[in-house]
Amino acid sequence: MRAAQKGKAPANAGAVVLSVDAMGGDLGPEATIAGVAKAHRAHPDLHFIIHGPRAQLEPLIAKHDLGDCVDLRHAERTVTMEDKPAQVLRNGQDTSMWSAIESVRDKEADVAVSCGNTGALMLISMMRLRKMPGVNRPAIASFWPSRGPAGWNVMLDMGADVKADAEDLLTYALMGTSYARNALGLERPRIGLLNIGTEEHKGRPELKEAYELISNAQEAGQFDFAGFVEGNELAGARADVIVTDGFTGNVALKTGEGTAKFVAELLREALTSSVMSKLGALFAMGALKRLRHKTDPRRANGGVFLGLNGTVVKSHGSADATSFAAAIELAARLARSGFGAKLAARVATTLPSGQDETKSGAPSAAEKSESSQ
Amino acid sequence: MRAAQKGKAPANAGAVVLSVDAMGGDLGPEATIAGVAKAHRAHPDLHFIIHGPRAQLEPLIAKHDLGDCVDLRHAERTVTMEDKPAQVLRNGQDTSMWSAIESVRDKEADVAVSCGNTGALMLISMMRLRKMPGVNRPAIASFWPSRGPAGWNVMLDMGADVKADAEDLLTYALMGTSYARNALGLERPRIGLLNIGTEEHKGRPELKEAYELISNAQEAGQFDFAGFVEGNELAGARADVIVTDGFTGNVALKTGEGTAKFVAELLREALTSSVMSKLGALFAMGALKRLRHKTDPRRANGGVFLGLNGTVVKSHGSADATSFAAAIELAARLARSGFGAKLAARVATTLPSGQDETKSGAPSAAEKSESSQ
Repeated sequence: MRAAQKGKAPANAGAVVLSVDAMGGDLGPEATIAGVAKAHRAHPDLHFIIHGPRAQLEPLIAKHDLGDCVDLRHAERTVTMEDKPAQVLRNGQDTSMWSAIESVRDKEADVAVSCGNTGALMLISMMRLRKMPGVNRPAIASFWPSRGPAGWNVMLDMGADVKADAEDLLTYALMGTSYARNALGLERPRIGLLNIGTEEHKGRPELKEAYELISNAQEAGQFDFAGFVEGNELAGARADVIVTDGFTGNVALKTGEGTAKFVAELLREALTSSVMSKLGALFAMGALKRLRHKTDPRRANGGVFLGLNGTVVKSHGSADATSFAAAIELAARLARSGFGAKLAARVATTLPSGQDETKSGAPSAAEKSESSQ
Repeated sequence: MRAAQKGKAPANAGAVVLSVDAMGGDLGPEATIAGVAKAHRAHPDLHFIIHGPRAQLEPLIAKHDLGDCVDLRHAERTVTMEDKPAQVLRNGQDTSMWSAIESVRDKEADVAVSCGNTGALMLISMMRLRKMPGVNRPAIASFWPSRGPAGWNVMLDMGADVKADAEDLLTYALMGTSYARNALGLERPRIGLLNIGTEEHKGRPELKEAYELISNAQEAGQFDFAGFVEGNELAGARADVIVTDGFTGNVALKTGEGTAKFVAELLREALTSSVMSKLGALFAMGALKRLRHKTDPRRANGGVFLGLNGTVVKSHGSADATSFAAAIELAARLARSGFGAKLAARVATTLPSGQDETKSGAPSAAEKSESSQ
């Protein structure tokens, strides 16, 4: 499985190939192709398989002079934000989204990137790539701006599934460990389990059970367990990876985004409320711009589907060129590190059935290979 | 039940009497008694029964010249933040928290206020005041700064219970309606049900069921149903009351608080990063101060326990005098409006068993009385 994961189409042997769904975003293919061009300028070695209607995409690819590094795959239709996932699964074979996932399934590309309908993308990915052995519920992992050592924390699940039992949460801890190591370069990430209190006896029953499971997997999984963390620690420095079910994760994500936007709006209103405050804003402009850059959600664009036989990066639907380029660069980083194979090995060797073996002896080959990251 | 709820000790007939736990906050009785004094200056008609160690409290009450409006009840011990709720319930009869709840139970006071250990306060309140007829799970309601007409939204449950089924969520909608009407003056509040998508088919099964129940209760409950809302709408103008289970509500609350604090810290760092930005901050000082006031969590201090035979306001543990005074003023507002009795009537007349009756005829006396608020 691992060897197969790393396979590429012979024509691009050795190069990193990304499969890009050019359609389905709010700003159309103009934004996504401009994003591809931006990422390509920064990383000239990347190759792309781009999916969408030939007539629309050819002029854009020519305009950005991407002919040499792009393989265009015609796909007639586009999945819209309004399409029901189940319908797309039944009749969506001729869409750019489906075609983009097929390139990963066929091992032509290492990672797929799309800014389309999340539900449809998840369902197609799940059905076409299939779940990784040992994973019951795949998850979506996102970055969260933080006080942590990498400047970002990882949080999962952000909404792939509405629930998670204790074993799913353990799997999320393992997948989050692998993701934090490969995407953020954290050697031994600290895992926090989201709860509504930090005492061991608090919270839902499955969380108490997950606390035990995750605590016992620390050594085999090569992470540190920071115990229960609360919502105010999502941006904190106590844990690098925050684990929760997809319902809670999605509510937290949107609450955090909504709160940041609300505070930013109030700040803007305050700074334009009088001549004096406008003058102040003028003097502080440089600092305020740096602040805006630091909190710019476009910098951290890309939720990653974890737990499938293939990696899929979901960009924000409203992604502009900058934002889509960030999603592509994330995909490239994961492809370069051989993330998919490492994640599979991590899950296979650390889940309860494999724990004793790992605990009793030397690290497995797979673990060694990941540790060397 | 309603008449009994409104009863007061004969000595204070006609006046609003609040029961205050002076102990258990992070800043000690100095802060709480200063808060009482502050609230009393703004509302000279309020009476207080204050609970705690006589030797500590007498000098503070004298210092603030509160002798005329305060009845001091000696309670030897204080519940600490570390105490386990179940232990407090077994052995806490001589604590100021217990004593404060007893005054509401005995109808000497209309509403109790405490800034102590939330879990212990909830458990004592639940066991001593008992659940209101028709309420399976009591809830904690809080204000959330918002773009809504009142400048605040109401959210519940914020953590009284870790779960809620569809009928509990309907009860929360009814209790939230009553609370928004009496605390924020919203005649016909708009209720939103928190979910991870706004389409009817999304989310957990109990949410789909709750959607139906709440939708059907709009007329009898005299609220408008805004349907599903997402985390980014907590501070929005689409719904005045946001209903969710206590686990999700607590995570959202702490995520929102954490995000606001994180953004504020980044802003402070940005504005002190250079001479120019410091100069800018100086010019904009007035505007920034107004912003800080607007987002000051102390202005909205007070989670309210709903669904018990008596109202309890939980102040932040870290409350200072300003913040504790805000909790007292909220308690006074609820006491003056006869909130406890109205809430009981609302729940009793609108829950499914009473729906047909209410729908088929004229509004009940209880509904008329609440509508007149």
